[in-house]
Amino acid sequence: MPFVNIKITRDGVSPEKKALLIRGVTDLLADLLGKNPRTTVVVIDEVETDNWGIGGETVTVRRQRGE
Amino acid sequence: MPFVNIKITRDGVSPEKKALLIRGVTDLLADLLGKNPRTTVVVIDEVETDNWGIGGETVTVRRQRGE
Amino acid sequence: MPFVNIKITRDGVSPEKKALLIRGVTDLLADLLGKNPRTTVVVIDEVETDNWGIGGETVTVRRQRGE
Amino acid sequence: MPFVNIKITRDGVSPEKKALLIRGVTDLLADLLGKNPRTTVVVIDEVETDNWGIGGETVTVRRQRGE
Amino acid sequence: MPFVNIKITRDGVSPEKKALLIRGVTDLLADLLGKNPRTTVVVIDEVETDNWGIGGETVTVRRQRGE
Amino acid sequence: MPFVNIKITRDGVSPEKKALLIRGVTDLLADLLGKNPRTTVVVIDEVETDNWGIGGETVTVRRQRGE
Repeated sequence: MPFVNIKITRDGVSPEKKALLIRGVTDLLADLLGKNPRTTVVVIDEVETDNWGIGGETVTVRRQRGE
Repeated sequence: MPFVNIKITRDGVSPEKKALLIRGVTDLLADLLGKNPRTTVVVIDEVETDNWGIGGETVTVRRQRGE
Repeated sequence: MPFVNIKITRDGVSPEKKALLIRGVTDLLADLLGKNPRTTVVVIDEVETDNWGIGGETVTVRRQRGE
Repeated sequence: MPFVNIKITRDGVSPEKKALLIRGVTDLLADLLGKNPRTTVVVIDEVETDNWGIGGETVTVRRQRGE
Repeated sequence: MPFVNIKITRDGVSPEKKALLIRGVTDLLADLLGKNPRTTVVVIDEVETDNWGIGGETVTVRRQRGE
Repeated sequence: MPFVNIKITRDGVSPEKKALLIRGVTDLLADLLGKNPRTTVVVIDEVETDNWGIGGETVTVRRQRGE
């Protein structure tokens, strides 16, 4: 019954990678906490780099500087 | 003053249906809990089926199997 | 499969009221959008009035003023 | 280490304004609470006006009425 | 830089289990998506069973029935 | 009408500091984006250090090491 929300920057992650991530997180919750995988929900949010800030700067600006 | 976030898969729900959902949730909070509808906020997130997992699989894959 | 998060101030809402709210939101999503109630998840967060701000003030302060 | 999520309606806010908002919120958390700006994360969600409800109505409908 | 929020029912999960969960999710994001583990944030919310609904019922009620 | 959710570790922030944070964020949104402060909502979540992970470790463990 867990609900997991994963926020990442929008960088063209493939559907196959997303499927592996969902499988991996669901398995972790089953293995570590005994949670029922059938009712585990995982939602991935992909966020534009202009809309993600860290260290007081957007990811867009950080990447332009080569970070 | 309540804040409600509703996450659903992106399936082309019409603006009219969204408006009915917002009205319905706002009324429920007023009727059951006495919350002021004027300051009740409802935000609907529509999520791609590749980004929504349940039972360790994406909704995309489940629908391809006919579920 | 929808996921709903409802944030309200912590004001001693009874378990019975919470159950009615969960039932009501689940039914709305089934009736309006055809969502399967069996996999609809609703999570209620109760927030201290010191931690909820509206209009630039905490709810604690607003209530002290009689609002 | 704080995490801040800001939801606003999608109204064409420029990358420069978003950058200023991220900088401002990060500075506030450093100045008021002593939080390390280097690990402060700010994520901005821009929401369609059809998907944002207040007072039981969508923002789309309210704006059509001139509010 | 990913941000992960995990919501589970409050059932007395030990700090050691939580640490393993945080480690596991962080490693998954590094292994699958190449995300930097140093800036990956994971926040676990533990929710009272009265406040968690699935299938239109609270978890409290479902457990009383033996589900 | 913006909605802001601020997650910080639970470290005994005073009600006065929280009130300043709410005021500051509300003012920023008004000054930078022209948002109406009367309908701006800010919710602060305080999270136990066992439940907050960064760099694959809980904040509890990091603090024990003196970080």
